[in-house]
Amino acid sequence: MAAARFDPQDPGFAERVRASFDRQGAMHTIGATLTSVEPGSVVIELPWSAGLTQQHGFLHAGMVATALDSACGYAGSSLMAADAGVLTIEYKINLLAPARGQRFRMVGEVLKPGRTITVAEGRAYAIDDGREKLIATMHCTLMAITGRDGIRH
Amino acid sequence: MAAARFDPQDPGFAERVRASFDRQGAMHTIGATLTSVEPGSVVIELPWSAGLTQQHGFLHAGMVATALDSACGYAGSSLMAADAGVLTIEYKINLLAPARGQRFRMVGEVLKPGRTITVAEGRAYAIDDGREKLIATMHCTLMAITGRDGIRH
Amino acid sequence: MAAARFDPQDPGFAERVRASFDRQGAMHTIGATLTSVEPGSVVIELPWSAGLTQQHGFLHAGMVATALDSACGYAGSSLMAADAGVLTIEYKINLLAPARGQRFRMVGEVLKPGRTITVAEGRAYAIDDGREKLIATMHCTLMAITGRDGIRH
Amino acid sequence: MAAARFDPQDPGFAERVRASFDRQGAMHTIGATLTSVEPGSVVIELPWSAGLTQQHGFLHAGMVATALDSACGYAGSSLMAADAGVLTIEYKINLLAPARGQRFRMVGEVLKPGRTITVAEGRAYAIDDGREKLIATMHCTLMAITGRDGIRH
Repeated sequence: MAAARFDPQDPGFAERVRASFDRQGAMHTIGATLTSVEPGSVVIELPWSAGLTQQHGFLHAGMVATALDSACGYAGSSLMAADAGVLTIEYKINLLAPARGQRFRMVGEVLKPGRTITVAEGRAYAIDDGREKLIATMHCTLMAITGRDGIRH
Repeated sequence: MAAARFDPQDPGFAERVRASFDRQGAMHTIGATLTSVEPGSVVIELPWSAGLTQQHGFLHAGMVATALDSACGYAGSSLMAADAGVLTIEYKINLLAPARGQRFRMVGEVLKPGRTITVAEGRAYAIDDGREKLIATMHCTLMAITGRDGIRH
Repeated sequence: MAAARFDPQDPGFAERVRASFDRQGAMHTIGATLTSVEPGSVVIELPWSAGLTQQHGFLHAGMVATALDSACGYAGSSLMAADAGVLTIEYKINLLAPARGQRFRMVGEVLKPGRTITVAEGRAYAIDDGREKLIATMHCTLMAITGRDGIRH
Repeated sequence: MAAARFDPQDPGFAERVRASFDRQGAMHTIGATLTSVEPGSVVIELPWSAGLTQQHGFLHAGMVATALDSACGYAGSSLMAADAGVLTIEYKINLLAPARGQRFRMVGEVLKPGRTITVAEGRAYAIDDGREKLIATMHCTLMAITGRDGIRH
């Protein structure tokens, strides 16, 4: 993961990210919490729940991706201008191990910020009986949007 | 999308897929229904709901991916042996347009089946005021698993 | 693959694409020829050669990708404005079968054109003893660039 | 990038990787050299050359991918059994900046080795007037193949 430090353009980035997170119905549904918002780096956590599972009782890959996509998107958003919205253009996720655990931690980090295009990476960890294991990696491309109806941060 | 027709190894593939789908807590949570199960081709539909949204009120990209991943995975599973489980190794999703609509239709199709590795493609459509629009494409790599504890179809 | 028909913005798109292709040293090196340039659809062909192989004597995946990336990029470029340059932001390639054959055909098609972002898909076929086989699929995201030094079509 | 250290199964991994690299016609064509082979980590370098360019004179994205794919593939191969061949199933590349420079360094590292499936990551750096810049990232899925005709390391 990128170890780079970034300077935010918008000093109010953390409040802006938190307010946007609270508007995501999907984050409420999956029981996710925003546990860290730093410039270019965001952490989201959620507990296991039966409503998020695939057929073997592990977290569904799509639910892992839902939380990871939000972590990456908000990592990108944290470095954007105050009036920019962020859209995920595409992402790829590699599922390294079954999402088995009681709790999950998703870390999104900006690899390269840009005026229009930002590239971010994510890591998903499962916490199973106190041990943390890397279960998925995400690589995503984000676009900053300004002045488009219905798209805000 | 692939127009190829495939011969299933397991004559009971449709019941097997339906039973597995019913065990996915995530599909219940997102309100998804399995509307078609053909050899190498599966359709999943779901209605918009506030609990699935991102900050602009559209379907969260992760929720689109959750349904699309299940459609692709079950398309692959339909061509596998009766005792094989299916795991998603990785997928990529391109989000072509905001997921704005009252209803969503996810089509998963096998591009190339294989003994170990199967490649599938997905298309997500939003139905908005009666018009259907392509909103996302998925490309995913699946693995057939046999004889591993805790992994079944 | 997309069956859509697109209207080009630039009536001189085919000449523009051909002139750009001729400036790609990499296309000369791999022996590629531009065999079709239609709005949103481009075909590139090349023969097998020992200088393009991996360790088993098949075409190297990177060389398949090189030709496929050009096919997708020029498919996108064909729909862009006359003064726009095209950059590949990212692509994913799935290698479905070894690239074994005497000749290879790469088809790039636009799935969704856009003012800034264009999404394209590619298919690579190997022609082996007269039979054509799908060996790889590509999905890529392109960006139109205008007014940036050193970037032209 | 992964900082993990891995134990090779095959004590002769480095010679095996070097011998395979020498059989890749594509590596000769692009002027690539294998500059480091460690367990789970491989570095490949190459100079700029006119025969590897796209229309702006930068390294063609496909050529960056060719070298990066080999770096990732051999990183995976270094941890496999002596009689296993390695196939790239799929990869994704994000192009972060134009490949402008006199020399290029490609680093491939295993993120998660496996009996069948190995996941690796790559970083491509351009060295331009003595300064090194990250220009691309790759994420790829490899498969170990044994006992298949025509596929060896």
